[in-house]
Amino acid sequence: MTQMAAARNGTVTEEMERVAEREGVDPAFVRQQVADGQAVIPANVGHDSLDPMIIGREFATKVNANIGNSEETSDIEGELEKLHTAVHYGADTVMDLSTGRNLDEIRSANVTHSPVPVGTVPIYEAVKRASDPSEITHELLLDVIEKQAKQGVDYMTIHAGVRMEHLPLTDGRKTGIVSRGGSILAKWIEENGMENPLYTKFEAICEIFREYDVTFSLGDGLRPGCLADAGDDAQFAELDTLGELTRTAWKHDVQVMVEGPGHVPMDQVAEQVERQQEVCDGAPFYVLGPLVTDVAPGYDHITSAIGATEAGRAGAAMLCYVTPKEHLGLPEKSDVRDGLAAYRIAAHAADVANGREGARDWDDALSEARYAFDWREQFDLALDPDRAREYHDQTLPGDNYKEARFCSMCGVEFCSMRIDQDARSDGDMESIEADADDRTPLEDSSAAAVNRPPVGTHDGADIPGPDADMPADTEGSADD
Amino acid sequence: MTQMAAARNGTVTEEMERVAEREGVDPAFVRQQVADGQAVIPANVGHDSLDPMIIGREFATKVNANIGNSEETSDIEGELEKLHTAVHYGADTVMDLSTGRNLDEIRSANVTHSPVPVGTVPIYEAVKRASDPSEITHELLLDVIEKQAKQGVDYMTIHAGVRMEHLPLTDGRKTGIVSRGGSILAKWIEENGMENPLYTKFEAICEIFREYDVTFSLGDGLRPGCLADAGDDAQFAELDTLGELTRTAWKHDVQVMVEGPGHVPMDQVAEQVERQQEVCDGAPFYVLGPLVTDVAPGYDHITSAIGATEAGRAGAAMLCYVTPKEHLGLPEKSDVRDGLAAYRIAAHAADVANGREGARDWDDALSEARYAFDWREQFDLALDPDRAREYHDQTLPGDNYKEARFCSMCGVEFCSMRIDQDARSDGDMESIEADADDRTPLEDSSAAAVNRPPVGTHDGADIPGPDADMPADTEGSADD
Repeated sequence: MTQMAAARNGTVTEEMERVAEREGVDPAFVRQQVADGQAVIPANVGHDSLDPMIIGREFATKVNANIGNSEETSDIEGELEKLHTAVHYGADTVMDLSTGRNLDEIRSANVTHSPVPVGTVPIYEAVKRASDPSEITHELLLDVIEKQAKQGVDYMTIHAGVRMEHLPLTDGRKTGIVSRGGSILAKWIEENGMENPLYTKFEAICEIFREYDVTFSLGDGLRPGCLADAGDDAQFAELDTLGELTRTAWKHDVQVMVEGPGHVPMDQVAEQVERQQEVCDGAPFYVLGPLVTDVAPGYDHITSAIGATEAGRAGAAMLCYVTPKEHLGLPEKSDVRDGLAAYRIAAHAADVANGREGARDWDDALSEARYAFDWREQFDLALDPDRAREYHDQTLPGDNYKEARFCSMCGVEFCSMRIDQDARSDGDMESIEADADDRTPLEDSSAAAVNRPPVGTHDGADIPGPDADMPADTEGSADD
Repeated sequence: MTQMAAARNGTVTEEMERVAEREGVDPAFVRQQVADGQAVIPANVGHDSLDPMIIGREFATKVNANIGNSEETSDIEGELEKLHTAVHYGADTVMDLSTGRNLDEIRSANVTHSPVPVGTVPIYEAVKRASDPSEITHELLLDVIEKQAKQGVDYMTIHAGVRMEHLPLTDGRKTGIVSRGGSILAKWIEENGMENPLYTKFEAICEIFREYDVTFSLGDGLRPGCLADAGDDAQFAELDTLGELTRTAWKHDVQVMVEGPGHVPMDQVAEQVERQQEVCDGAPFYVLGPLVTDVAPGYDHITSAIGATEAGRAGAAMLCYVTPKEHLGLPEKSDVRDGLAAYRIAAHAADVANGREGARDWDDALSEARYAFDWREQFDLALDPDRAREYHDQTLPGDNYKEARFCSMCGVEFCSMRIDQDARSDGDMESIEADADDRTPLEDSSAAAVNRPPVGTHDGADIPGPDADMPADTEGSADD
């Protein structure tokens, strides 16, 4: 039985109990949100190592990291190391986008070891197994999807909204179809002169998903690949189809989230989120950025984290990270770290902006430590403790500087917080209490449980990797 | 005569002609904006090397980079190298925040060589010359300000809004007073029991500024240093005083911009900008970020670029960059590069969002080159060409890959743009023209003239530096 079927039957599952605990909310609220399709708990019945999590606009904003091999690499150990890195730096879900060799082994290893939901794009394996995208058969597609469901994959991107009638709407674009799955299906449709097989077989896919409780991630195969193409007829025609498919999946008690762009100017991000929420009846929106400008290859973790923050503020439920290598090459481990940092920032900033209970506690605790010149605590509370410590110690490495009332940015004579504290010893201003005892406690805060990586999110210690014997939440870990 | 006095007399100055040309607008419009105080042209009458620029909400969003030495370093060559780096990576203005030795020599060298306006914070020199902040006299302050004005400084941060009556409003804060100038003046006020000398002598400062046409940058000495303190009574009481001082300066025909925070949650950024515009009668808003979360030391160029984009979208005129070293240490050259990249992104994304004429041309031209697999053109058009090329070439360095229809991110089999183009050879979809001849021209676009660094902004070739003999706009420059 799927989480959605259970929820609709009035049952609070173990998974709902767990996510309620993690988010600091009532299990009954979780059940209602899942029953109504407003949130999803991607949890394949066969994914034993999973620590359940929830994706929905009423919960903390989540972050996905894409991992997986390319044609050049096929090493399982290397892939598990990527999984470890992603979980260590705070990925709430991972997508295995492998397109090289050993697809089955890598996927199984990821599911076996991952404490976070694993997503895939089954059309990639179908392409690998057919001699050409246009040779993919309906049977092959369903076969691949069922096999991956059996392997324990928690959610799958299904580009069923790329319909034959939408394709000519992309003719006037600057960058055509930029989704890999979207372009593969467009080629299939064009060469076979038939409707998208993922669309025509959608109810058969629903039946498979219901059996294993796989969550749909309805792919936006026609998403804009540049600002000029944002919000065009092709994009919104596909979105309308995704709304229709959302309702179809719900009839089968199958959970659904909907994928979104891409490249969108800052002033259009909020309206894009609002439109998806309306067209898809509140199904969780899972966005890729969006990038708010096309001009900065090499910095697209930043161009997209800006759009992602605005999307999260407007109601997007999960943000798919983009790394600095986007548009340029295959990301390395350091890119995964930079991408996740940018996206943990976006997700948390959105939660603070939305007034999510407890979210700002994290900011408060860190700022209190900062004002108290408690450098060690400031590093420990930082989103990336290793990097904060590394940057500080570049100029003032000595242990004595960990209690100094200044850093090298301004020096002791010009440190505003030092001067401010001294000024409060005379005159009209009162001292500000900054002792450790007076600080915001994070133990009972949802910020501590959900927002803070790597301490507060999933434990990656059981994932084989170069530093697998080192707990993911200790100060000493340095796996970059 | 100041630019404002000339504008009010109906005169279009050479500087107004030049900025009108750069921004692609009518000189009469520039004159009116300056006359009304809605925009400033910081251009000290003695700054001979200046290429004039304009700051105002009706013009392209600008970026400032802070440079300057600390107590540990005092090398003029090193400082000029920082100036070179800042201009090379697209700083529209620089602030010399030196607090070490040789302040006069460094300031003079910066003014002599800088093609962009140079700003300072004169209270820093006053502190260096007095034995203690509380020993600063009114005479010393005016003396320092007049000397710096004579040296050709184009704008100065004057923290005249930190009034005695505002100080107790900071008592309940988490991080007190985090502006260096603000904390120095608070200490002065507390120890002397007298009103802020920059406030009591404000009209005398106006007279000096009028003589040399120095622009006020009214400092926000009580800006919030953490999310919890954003928008509190202390901040807004000071803002009201800055509004009053804006009107006083305008009576003296002196140009004014107003500084803003700091640390502000994403949902409050736009309303903060709107409030400043209302309280200060539309005087240009010059914001430091703001950071939308406190939790990410080491990544504050990102936390703040998010807020800066939103601020620019809402009407802020200039964005003061923040580097990855913020809160942790003195920035190095690579930090200046990363900070400027993040802020050029923010400024440009805001201009696109605001529909500034020609701004999106840059995005369009780059995306067209991307779809055409014209890698060299894509790199040349990139915000940071060297970095884009470097990242691409890490995996595919060969010259033949500069025309390849894929990169290592997806590989040839899964490159969506390659598949999309192939799909358009049969079926219903039409080909998308991507020849060089069909692309968006940037020659006559304001995006090319104002937004693109380093090609389109100021020429840094005359600034002495390690690569001073290499033009700042060639591909080969690599001064990181």
